[in-house]
Amino acid sequence: MNRLQTLTQYMNDNNVQALLITDPKHVYYLTGFASDPHERFLGLVLQLDKEPVLIVPALDAEAAHASSSVTKIVTHTDTDHPYELLKQQLPSVLENLGIEKDHLSVVRYEALQEVLNVNSYIDIGPWLRDMRVLKSPEEVNRMKHAVNLIEEVLRQSVSRVKTGVAEVELVAEIEYLMKKLGADGPSFDTMVLTGEKTALPHGVPGTRKVQPGEFIMFDIGVYANGYASDITRTFAVGDINDELVAIYNTVLAANEQAIHAVKPNVSFASIDLAARNLIENAGYGPYFMHRLGHGLGMDVHEYPSVHSKNSDLLKPGMVFTIEPGIYVQGRGGVRIEDDVLVTESGIEVLTSYPKELTVIG
Amino acid sequence: MNRLQTLTQYMNDNNVQALLITDPKHVYYLTGFASDPHERFLGLVLQLDKEPVLIVPALDAEAAHASSSVTKIVTHTDTDHPYELLKQQLPSVLENLGIEKDHLSVVRYEALQEVLNVNSYIDIGPWLRDMRVLKSPEEVNRMKHAVNLIEEVLRQSVSRVKTGVAEVELVAEIEYLMKKLGADGPSFDTMVLTGEKTALPHGVPGTRKVQPGEFIMFDIGVYANGYASDITRTFAVGDINDELVAIYNTVLAANEQAIHAVKPNVSFASIDLAARNLIENAGYGPYFMHRLGHGLGMDVHEYPSVHSKNSDLLKPGMVFTIEPGIYVQGRGGVRIEDDVLVTESGIEVLTSYPKELTVIG
Repeated sequence: MNRLQTLTQYMNDNNVQALLITDPKHVYYLTGFASDPHERFLGLVLQLDKEPVLIVPALDAEAAHASSSVTKIVTHTDTDHPYELLKQQLPSVLENLGIEKDHLSVVRYEALQEVLNVNSYIDIGPWLRDMRVLKSPEEVNRMKHAVNLIEEVLRQSVSRVKTGVAEVELVAEIEYLMKKLGADGPSFDTMVLTGEKTALPHGVPGTRKVQPGEFIMFDIGVYANGYASDITRTFAVGDINDELVAIYNTVLAANEQAIHAVKPNVSFASIDLAARNLIENAGYGPYFMHRLGHGLGMDVHEYPSVHSKNSDLLKPGMVFTIEPGIYVQGRGGVRIEDDVLVTESGIEVLTSYPKELTVIG
Repeated sequence: MNRLQTLTQYMNDNNVQALLITDPKHVYYLTGFASDPHERFLGLVLQLDKEPVLIVPALDAEAAHASSSVTKIVTHTDTDHPYELLKQQLPSVLENLGIEKDHLSVVRYEALQEVLNVNSYIDIGPWLRDMRVLKSPEEVNRMKHAVNLIEEVLRQSVSRVKTGVAEVELVAEIEYLMKKLGADGPSFDTMVLTGEKTALPHGVPGTRKVQPGEFIMFDIGVYANGYASDITRTFAVGDINDELVAIYNTVLAANEQAIHAVKPNVSFASIDLAARNLIENAGYGPYFMHRLGHGLGMDVHEYPSVHSKNSDLLKPGMVFTIEPGIYVQGRGGVRIEDDVLVTESGIEVLTSYPKELTVIG
């Protein structure tokens, strides 16, 4: 069953008359047409027993015809009213219309309400979330490719680390390598942090320079063929003191503990707690102040959220990150992040970059 | 009057009791705290006669304390319910609450409605739009800096164009230069197109190689200190035929015609039509199928939309793009884009890269 058929099944099962898909990633997921419409209107209209219709900016008409599996394409220019075009595709009165409430802005929602005669709007975000969370073998292959790319980038970048190089210089090198090796681009702001800045989980690279006796942390990822990778490794630059070594080894043990806990039908909470309890028992509990990880796919952060209160169960085909960290302000932090796939028999760790404490620079 | 005071004035004038600002760019604009909260909740709460409160993910607490002018900061972890924290900051019943309806998703809107007791939600998007559209001298300086950076990137990139180089190789070089020269990063997907691909206004760079007798088009921009630049230049690689020369010169004349039309108190429509009429009179009307330009600022595409039906008037302090184009499928296209500032006396063109037809490669 292809993805449009799966959605049609959902429509039948839930008595939903029509769907309007507006998230460009979902339009890509369902039709193969990738685009960035910026503020322009993009919409895929699905109705039972009617041909799907794709409404695209006139600018993108040629690209849509070339790549979309949906062949009925309606275009609008910058002076058209796209909602009027939408209205023409739908019955004059609709019992219900499925929309992505997590993507649609309130402005657009109110504009729809203004133009269309719909009795109730159904949130189909969860349908798409449930479809997307289980990756097909083809999707897993794309993610492996994105992982391979970012690990090669990391390998080449690490060889360029030396005392005196600034964080932003390494960021520039890394993003150049991403493109050169064939990635679409970074999947999030490339992060290279040094010294006490490694204690900032969301720190911003700057002109701070690599220095011996400190940590350097790389949190990097790429999009390739529409799918994301995301990896963090932390290295020692020259010799580091025993406290930093202890922090490193605690995070590594927590990362491995969580990986060992992954298998179908256990909860996300249990995976988070496997790492969290180890860190708490080592006395660093207050220094691990974020969730263990997040889903990964067409978005670098997507469902599920891997945290200590998520009782949802792991299923084969899910891909998410495992990224425990310890952050001691003023001294430094460590995070070690892998991308993992839940399999029938347990786990496949997609990332393979070595994790033992390594001295570089 | 600082920006928070301006908003307070709006609140008084419109009898709005409280505001919830959730767009990270607006939080930055109003407090100086820049962040990318991903799917986590970020909110600035403003109330008349109460101290402003910033609600941030715990991860970003340190960065917020370091940079935000709002000093009352409440943090939430991945397992907290941020809307409960929000509720604690507000009276138990609110007559109205101002929100950014163009930024807030329907899911979040419905979550607010669930948790808060608010009689009516006011869209304050237009207030912020009206504030942002008039750039301060400080903002104009930042935009000039972003323009200078991208023009230096363009200059260095053009010198690397030669037969046989692939579009994606140039993209990689360009994005490396952006970072190396100190930009935060590209302000949109870097576009380098060659040959017949220049006829795709939203084409995607690929492995196609530079060849003589064709156009090469660069549409590139950076963010620097939070502000965007955006420039397009099209060059001839070696000798091109007379038809391509005619297309080029028509676009250039349209670009200049539009620039000459810019001054306070004329409409955006009149600017668009200045270029559009010239292109139509030259017989290329159907090949210019997009608006003339778009506002530029903290977003690379922001209010206003410069199109033929926008009767809003230009005011000193507005910054937008002027980017007419002609796209002949199968043969090639030209777009020439400048960033312009409306001044008391007329116009200041922020971009200065030469526009006469230039042969490179």
